[in-house]
Amino acid sequence: MDHVLEPHLRELITKTFDEWIPFNRILGLHLTEVSAARAVATLAMEPDLVGNPVKGILHGGVISATLDAVGGIAAFAAVLAKADLDDEGRVSALNRLGTIDIRVDYLRPAGGRSFVATAYPMRAGNTVAVSRMELADDAGEIVAVGTGTYIVG
Amino acid sequence: MDHVLEPHLRELITKTFDEWIPFNRILGLHLTEVSAARAVATLAMEPDLVGNPVKGILHGGVISATLDAVGGIAAFAAVLAKADLDDEGRVSALNRLGTIDIRVDYLRPAGGRSFVATAYPMRAGNTVAVSRMELADDAGEIVAVGTGTYIVG
Amino acid sequence: MDHVLEPHLRELITKTFDEWIPFNRILGLHLTEVSAARAVATLAMEPDLVGNPVKGILHGGVISATLDAVGGIAAFAAVLAKADLDDEGRVSALNRLGTIDIRVDYLRPAGGRSFVATAYPMRAGNTVAVSRMELADDAGEIVAVGTGTYIVG
Amino acid sequence: MDHVLEPHLRELITKTFDEWIPFNRILGLHLTEVSAARAVATLAMEPDLVGNPVKGILHGGVISATLDAVGGIAAFAAVLAKADLDDEGRVSALNRLGTIDIRVDYLRPAGGRSFVATAYPMRAGNTVAVSRMELADDAGEIVAVGTGTYIVG
Repeated sequence: MDHVLEPHLRELITKTFDEWIPFNRILGLHLTEVSAARAVATLAMEPDLVGNPVKGILHGGVISATLDAVGGIAAFAAVLAKADLDDEGRVSALNRLGTIDIRVDYLRPAGGRSFVATAYPMRAGNTVAVSRMELADDAGEIVAVGTGTYIVG
Repeated sequence: MDHVLEPHLRELITKTFDEWIPFNRILGLHLTEVSAARAVATLAMEPDLVGNPVKGILHGGVISATLDAVGGIAAFAAVLAKADLDDEGRVSALNRLGTIDIRVDYLRPAGGRSFVATAYPMRAGNTVAVSRMELADDAGEIVAVGTGTYIVG
Repeated sequence: MDHVLEPHLRELITKTFDEWIPFNRILGLHLTEVSAARAVATLAMEPDLVGNPVKGILHGGVISATLDAVGGIAAFAAVLAKADLDDEGRVSALNRLGTIDIRVDYLRPAGGRSFVATAYPMRAGNTVAVSRMELADDAGEIVAVGTGTYIVG
Repeated sequence: MDHVLEPHLRELITKTFDEWIPFNRILGLHLTEVSAARAVATLAMEPDLVGNPVKGILHGGVISATLDAVGGIAAFAAVLAKADLDDEGRVSALNRLGTIDIRVDYLRPAGGRSFVATAYPMRAGNTVAVSRMELADDAGEIVAVGTGTYIVG
């Protein structure tokens, strides 16, 4: 499997992820890496994203939304790397991408100024793909992990 | 088990949920019912909450954040109904409440103008509580279900 | 949706579930009800199925295996009720049925002499189906709940 | 954290896992490694463990039971490595160990003659611990992954 996506495809996916999806903009997600081997996105702590003002930590929903989003991109990239699609077919595939279900484990309070979410595709089938995700704080500590199942066909 | 919480306690929980938690305000969540038997919150479709502008449906992360939040309140209310705490003890318990893990199943595209999230406590132990949740659209159709495990002790 | 399956189809599914699947025989599962609305199976406590001999309770793996099995049947029956298949097509569909993922919540120690597992289909799509399951002990108390996602296409 | 458990403690845990838990014997599980960093168990394909006789693959319930069991041991070992307990306290802790919830993702048909289940502790708190698990077939291919949450206090 060729793990590298062509530059214009990476750019298209990144633009869709960062700018086209309204709620990703609310979260302030930025996709910094995408290949068939993994996807990485960053997120900065903002007052609006807090779940507990006393502790100053991210809302659990921000974490699950972030892991879901980056897991879907990893699944999609892994599927693209296997399929032989032209650009129109790829955009159409991106539009069909949907989360079937997700599990998130909150391991530690998510404090800090910024976070990195990484997703690894575990299975890339014709209809279903699975990713495992993790969220690290700015000290490199893993604060949450998750698993997502995505419809890709 | 007495399923009814005293009015001032309901008010305290509602105010905390609707106003005190920053990211709940971003989502526009309103807690409309809370007892030891169930918790209910409403959510309105807003442009910022969209995941796919072509389809005009809620972002999956909005759904998981909503179900997580309402599931935690149901778990908390069920635990309160069993415990014999004064108001200070209750506020302290609310501050210790945290999500251990959550699963969300996205059953149908979440379109419509408003949504109702309902959570039912399934277990209310001394340290761990479990809720099952569902999200219905404005036609009453269930668009997502979830299960959350919460630390309550 | 017609919730009733024809008798010979119910019989075929029951025989497959109870007799044809080796590990179901080890568990001693018996399918007692199957329709597009729900599936029900029973299970008796046996020394081999114990997880903790001091407490005399079911092994968690017995519970997850049971909920997975009955959830798959409910998903399958719900899909069959929508599809227009002849008997050959149905057997072929049963052979393609597979669990994508499952979550199980262990709510209480599973003691008692017998158990009833019930599964409710929540979604029956062309490729993916979702069921919610619960396991009750012989006092009618729910000791575990679960959610399963199945490939059905 | 000292990742090595004393030999007599490893032996005690292994004996409990392999011999004392009845359903583990039915599955034929053997714990081959246990430390605060990971736990490993093996499993051989047997006719009784099959889920689909045509395909000759493991029943999903065998997989979830195996991952649950090895995940619990990893969580327990990680907690032990942090706690200062005498042997009596350790046996008592092992008796209190219980699964709160588990998720299992079935990635590929589980064929082959033998399987290796590995669990990695992700969080080892005072009351709750979390492990991530994977099951590999005899070609080293990962056929399933899972995540388990355990009560340890």
